[in-house]
Amino acid sequence: MSAEIKQVYWRGGSLYVLDQRLLPHRTKYIRCGTPESVAAAIRDMALRGAPLIGGAAAYGFALAAKSLPSDPKRWWPALDRAAKTLKASRPTAVNLMHGVDHMLAAAERLLFRKEIGAVEFYKGLKEEADRFFDEDASWNRRMGELGSKLLKRGSTVITYCNTGALATCGLGTALGVIRTAYKHGKIKHVYACETRPYMQGSRLTLWELMRAGIPSTLITDNMAAHLMATERIDAIFVGSDRIAANADVANKIGTYGLSILARHHGIPFYVVAPSTTVDLRTKHGRLIPIEERSAREVVEIGGRLFAPKGAKARHPAFDVTPSRLVTAIVTERGVVRPPNARTLRKVIAPKP
Amino acid sequence: MSAEIKQVYWRGGSLYVLDQRLLPHRTKYIRCGTPESVAAAIRDMALRGAPLIGGAAAYGFALAAKSLPSDPKRWWPALDRAAKTLKASRPTAVNLMHGVDHMLAAAERLLFRKEIGAVEFYKGLKEEADRFFDEDASWNRRMGELGSKLLKRGSTVITYCNTGALATCGLGTALGVIRTAYKHGKIKHVYACETRPYMQGSRLTLWELMRAGIPSTLITDNMAAHLMATERIDAIFVGSDRIAANADVANKIGTYGLSILARHHGIPFYVVAPSTTVDLRTKHGRLIPIEERSAREVVEIGGRLFAPKGAKARHPAFDVTPSRLVTAIVTERGVVRPPNARTLRKVIAPKP
Repeated sequence: MSAEIKQVYWRGGSLYVLDQRLLPHRTKYIRCGTPESVAAAIRDMALRGAPLIGGAAAYGFALAAKSLPSDPKRWWPALDRAAKTLKASRPTAVNLMHGVDHMLAAAERLLFRKEIGAVEFYKGLKEEADRFFDEDASWNRRMGELGSKLLKRGSTVITYCNTGALATCGLGTALGVIRTAYKHGKIKHVYACETRPYMQGSRLTLWELMRAGIPSTLITDNMAAHLMATERIDAIFVGSDRIAANADVANKIGTYGLSILARHHGIPFYVVAPSTTVDLRTKHGRLIPIEERSAREVVEIGGRLFAPKGAKARHPAFDVTPSRLVTAIVTERGVVRPPNARTLRKVIAPKP
Repeated sequence: MSAEIKQVYWRGGSLYVLDQRLLPHRTKYIRCGTPESVAAAIRDMALRGAPLIGGAAAYGFALAAKSLPSDPKRWWPALDRAAKTLKASRPTAVNLMHGVDHMLAAAERLLFRKEIGAVEFYKGLKEEADRFFDEDASWNRRMGELGSKLLKRGSTVITYCNTGALATCGLGTALGVIRTAYKHGKIKHVYACETRPYMQGSRLTLWELMRAGIPSTLITDNMAAHLMATERIDAIFVGSDRIAANADVANKIGTYGLSILARHHGIPFYVVAPSTTVDLRTKHGRLIPIEERSAREVVEIGGRLFAPKGAKARHPAFDVTPSRLVTAIVTERGVVRPPNARTLRKVIAPKP
């Protein structure tokens, strides 16, 4: 976990989850002692961010082994139930499926390998969740170093949504690069887009940047173009929810527009995401389903209705940035530049 | 005034101003019986929109003539005081200066022309305010017809901020075109950008569109690019606060970004504004001062703090769209297409 921000922590056989819904004004943890309570925390948006959800789900699965039936034959149905509950908590999250499947495979390995006691099995799964979580954190560090190399000293960058410790198991993806680059003296200033409608930028990213002591300024999403035209902006860094085989990038709604603005002003547009974000089975971006969320989340802000009663609203939660608008994709396996089907495959799935 | 929405109305020697701060949930008018109370309504943002402010200020000036001193020699100082109070209520608004100066000139004409009684003078000024107000409304109608011709039947358009009856003395500028085109059967659907940070789109434009029965959907500003890429968008219509001599357009923050997105997707980008918006003394857009408003208006929404305490924020209230990104400027004197110094001058200030 990040040294500075504990997005989740394990103590006394429970996972404690930082309730991100209360940020930035309150720091409160939710104790999760069962797979069901971890699933509820994910479903109710107490935590978010694809890699972090995956990491939390791994711990959630391990919790299923805490109170297994005495008959080992009934273990697997209990584990299977836990896996299903966790996967159903955010059906579109690829990392969640990945985290749970990883733990299912580990459980299978442990059970096959030897006659194993309940305590040892639980311990084995908890250690596997630790490894899974720490691996994501180590990927963050690697992407941080690789991404930092893309910047010169004294850079001013724009970032979008929240891609930091609150979205991952470590420093973050795009924000991890920014933090690493700051440590290396390369960041002069960060503009964080508020990221309507959920305000992850103002609520979460600014909170992380301020805690890290990085000079930062909040802007509304519609100010980005004006800044690009009137100030020196050296790069844009964003994360990704899914990357297609042709290197098209799905990310939070608004990312695509930002990439067009960057191109128009000749500013590099970088996507930072672990290789597990790449979905080689999805040929190109137009095949990525875009979740349409509740209109209520657009007409209301913080529970207060701004639009007229009965107003219609759209709420596509994500958009797709075609790879030609992306300068480079930074993964823990290397930098994909320029991103396309060939360069992506070369970095992500190198031939043996 | 618009047949459907009375943004202000005159009754019994007072100007009644629709308090736009309470929209869309409450419709309440503020009674203004003096120039000072009209100035207060402008200053406190009860009404907004450059042309509407100009029209209201004209009535505000007429109100000064309601209670003039008995000695006609003391009239002018009283009128001058009223003019100064009104002008100070929103120092950057060109239309406000224009409205007050127009009334000062009318007062001068009335006083010079003949021995005039106080009642007759007041009546003359009130009639001049009516004319000034109605002229803006007639310009709206003319721009509506000219702009409507730019659209084919069944068009889907995007609009920004509020440029309707709530911003003008009539139907509106950009929204006036949309309403006129709808009347002519040319509008299938309107997407209104919410327009952070003030939410004029969600609070005001959607209210106007819904009252007019025009099919409309609210979007957050960062969704516009996604819609342009995934749906058929036929045109963008925006207003303007000031147009430089080279046809660069200053308008609400976010307009510039929208123009880049429109160009990227090959969608026509239209600016609708009366000829009084053109400021031939300002050579080009970079010379237009951009008002930086309070950071508080960005970190808070509806009085609720979203960002962390102490967070810094930028708040440029306007941006400048270079004329090359504008497909045409629709004025009451004609359509400027393509907009540049020559074509603009030809339409706005034709040689005698």
